[in-house]
Amino acid sequence: MKGEIFSIGHELLMGELSDTNGSWIAAKLPALGIQLQFMSIIGDNLDDLAGAFARGLKRSDIIFTTGGLGPTQDDLTREGVAKAVGETPVVQEEVVKDLERYFQGRGMTMPATNIKQAYLIPSARFIPNPNGTAPGWWTQRNGKIIINMPGPPGEMHPMFENEVAPRLREIIKDEVTLTRNIKTIGLSEGAIDEMLTEFFNRGNPYLGIYAKQDGIHLRIIARAGDAATAQGLIQPMEEGIVSRVGPYVWGYDDETPEQAAGQALKARGLTLATMESVSGGYLVNSITDVPDSASYYKGGVVALDDQLKIANGVPAEIIKKHGSVSQETATAMAQAIRRSLGADFGIGIVGVSGSRGEMVQGRPAGLGYLSVAGPDRVKEMELRIPPRRVVVKRRLANTALIELRRMVSAL
Amino acid sequence: MKGEIFSIGHELLMGELSDTNGSWIAAKLPALGIQLQFMSIIGDNLDDLAGAFARGLKRSDIIFTTGGLGPTQDDLTREGVAKAVGETPVVQEEVVKDLERYFQGRGMTMPATNIKQAYLIPSARFIPNPNGTAPGWWTQRNGKIIINMPGPPGEMHPMFENEVAPRLREIIKDEVTLTRNIKTIGLSEGAIDEMLTEFFNRGNPYLGIYAKQDGIHLRIIARAGDAATAQGLIQPMEEGIVSRVGPYVWGYDDETPEQAAGQALKARGLTLATMESVSGGYLVNSITDVPDSASYYKGGVVALDDQLKIANGVPAEIIKKHGSVSQETATAMAQAIRRSLGADFGIGIVGVSGSRGEMVQGRPAGLGYLSVAGPDRVKEMELRIPPRRVVVKRRLANTALIELRRMVSAL
Repeated sequence: MKGEIFSIGHELLMGELSDTNGSWIAAKLPALGIQLQFMSIIGDNLDDLAGAFARGLKRSDIIFTTGGLGPTQDDLTREGVAKAVGETPVVQEEVVKDLERYFQGRGMTMPATNIKQAYLIPSARFIPNPNGTAPGWWTQRNGKIIINMPGPPGEMHPMFENEVAPRLREIIKDEVTLTRNIKTIGLSEGAIDEMLTEFFNRGNPYLGIYAKQDGIHLRIIARAGDAATAQGLIQPMEEGIVSRVGPYVWGYDDETPEQAAGQALKARGLTLATMESVSGGYLVNSITDVPDSASYYKGGVVALDDQLKIANGVPAEIIKKHGSVSQETATAMAQAIRRSLGADFGIGIVGVSGSRGEMVQGRPAGLGYLSVAGPDRVKEMELRIPPRRVVVKRRLANTALIELRRMVSAL
Repeated sequence: MKGEIFSIGHELLMGELSDTNGSWIAAKLPALGIQLQFMSIIGDNLDDLAGAFARGLKRSDIIFTTGGLGPTQDDLTREGVAKAVGETPVVQEEVVKDLERYFQGRGMTMPATNIKQAYLIPSARFIPNPNGTAPGWWTQRNGKIIINMPGPPGEMHPMFENEVAPRLREIIKDEVTLTRNIKTIGLSEGAIDEMLTEFFNRGNPYLGIYAKQDGIHLRIIARAGDAATAQGLIQPMEEGIVSRVGPYVWGYDDETPEQAAGQALKARGLTLATMESVSGGYLVNSITDVPDSASYYKGGVVALDDQLKIANGVPAEIIKKHGSVSQETATAMAQAIRRSLGADFGIGIVGVSGSRGEMVQGRPAGLGYLSVAGPDRVKEMELRIPPRRVVVKRRLANTALIELRRMVSAL
């Protein structure tokens, strides 16, 4: 079954806020057997809306919309559907009563404009909305479905979960889609594309490749009549991919580097401390984003100058001999913070920030060193990163966490 | 001039991530005199892309796209444009050389697949991309414009700002819309509404009021034949607003708390150091996101346990007497790190993380204390925040930075 999503509202076209409803719905569709073809953001304009519905009904089997169900003259989603299917809305008296009760319950009288929330066309049924005044519309006509939901996520999410998804599960007998995301680091997108060329363009399972801030992601998408069969399609491709790029794989599905490293530590009852300079706290901030981090993370120092490094146990003579930006200093930082906080692992990160081509004390901007110190060995690494501040911060932090995970898992 | 935006990528349709490029571009268009009609998210499918371009060229004057310019077989944006306009891409040798240099600079050889990033059709010109391998395309044909930009924001934003927007300013002669965003904290929406009542409902310039996580934003929107005239409409209203709520204004337009605080410090040649617990490095990571931060920020400690606080100069007896989560400890942290790094200002943050309703050592989750210590006084503050991890981190860090800016500006 082919689907599309409209997010409706003038404010979305003003760039005042990003639409999050679309991606929220999109993530639910594969498991319902719906293949999403398009997502659109459309303003509160009757002709634009009617045109979009008419086009959507031609090219898709099902259209989901959010927004434009409010009581004001700007809210034209219902009118757009009615115009596209050529039907006339009629006021439903029992819904007017519901609305009046809703307002009475809040000690208010219903504004006259809210009456349009009681409109219905002959092909549509209401979808109950216990969390607001705007009921949804479920329109079914000539084998096509239009589902209109309100824009506020607090109303839309429960409506989708409790009303829309269960009905769709009954109706749709299409195949389901399973995905598996394999996360790698250390190879370029082009290099992976070459190494895995045999797996691309197979149709089903489909292999996608995405360059992300934490490396290259490979996503296997399989469609089948049931989940077990889909899993049977994924497994051999996953094994084939891992057999070729296995040493570069650091995580699966939605896992982040800080989660992957945190889980590895937690599973073994081990702890971590960090000292970083050029990554500027990106490392510690990522680590503390994980809800359980307090059980394995003992804290960190963001030592932008040598004074704070030395105050936290880095020998001044190492900095003097090798420089603030050196592999030796990164290792001394990892070991000093590990020791002073009594942690099993320490991470040290240093590097050169600056603009592309700039040299700082004889070292190019974007040069970074990281060290992961464990109970019996230290992993050292030199990186050269495009010298954009946020890229340098993220890349060094992510790489350190991925290396940490690798060391911990190998214990 | 009528415009639309395509965000291109299969992963956007899978709900794996929300598109943020669309709203970023959307926010820039009014000032360029472009009325945005539609935003669409389209998968990596040649027919869908070609169809969308063909339709867009009919109903709009200009189409912006992000994504699908990478080197892989999945990246089909160029091919979509070529098909829609009926032209054939040809490899441009000088761009191949640029690409080879890019990879050489990173110690790699160029994968063969990257060659398609050197494709061009006759109606298109390249848009330089100093931050990645994928140049953009600027296609102009029969009075219509297509602008293809890469998906990563770190590449797309500078391409738009430095290449696309300046050229469009030369071309477009339509009425422009300018906005001015004034950011306040410390007054309620209702209080501001009353204080500024004379400025609302004027039509042009229009004044909007928005509650955001960093305070109340006031947005002035002016339309005029040219930027100077629009600016002339904004200025008296801005002056009127600032004369009434000036002490509560902490920033303008896209300014973040860390930028506002940083600029205040830098303008006076003053420096900052930080020590935080519950905000988990969100504070230091925000501060170091600002490009110039090295000139005024001396570093920070993320002291999740008391050991690291004491090692960095917080008196053990204060923690013992008042507890780790107390106003006194926050102030001692601010003063200790200020002193040990010889900074003009120190920030200390402590608080209780946990779930709603949870008590930790007799204190409710979401309780936080912050202290900003300056040369001659300390600002102390107690906050009660909905205990969601990221909300607690962000609110404490933002509030501390806004208070810091206020103290520095008052010097």
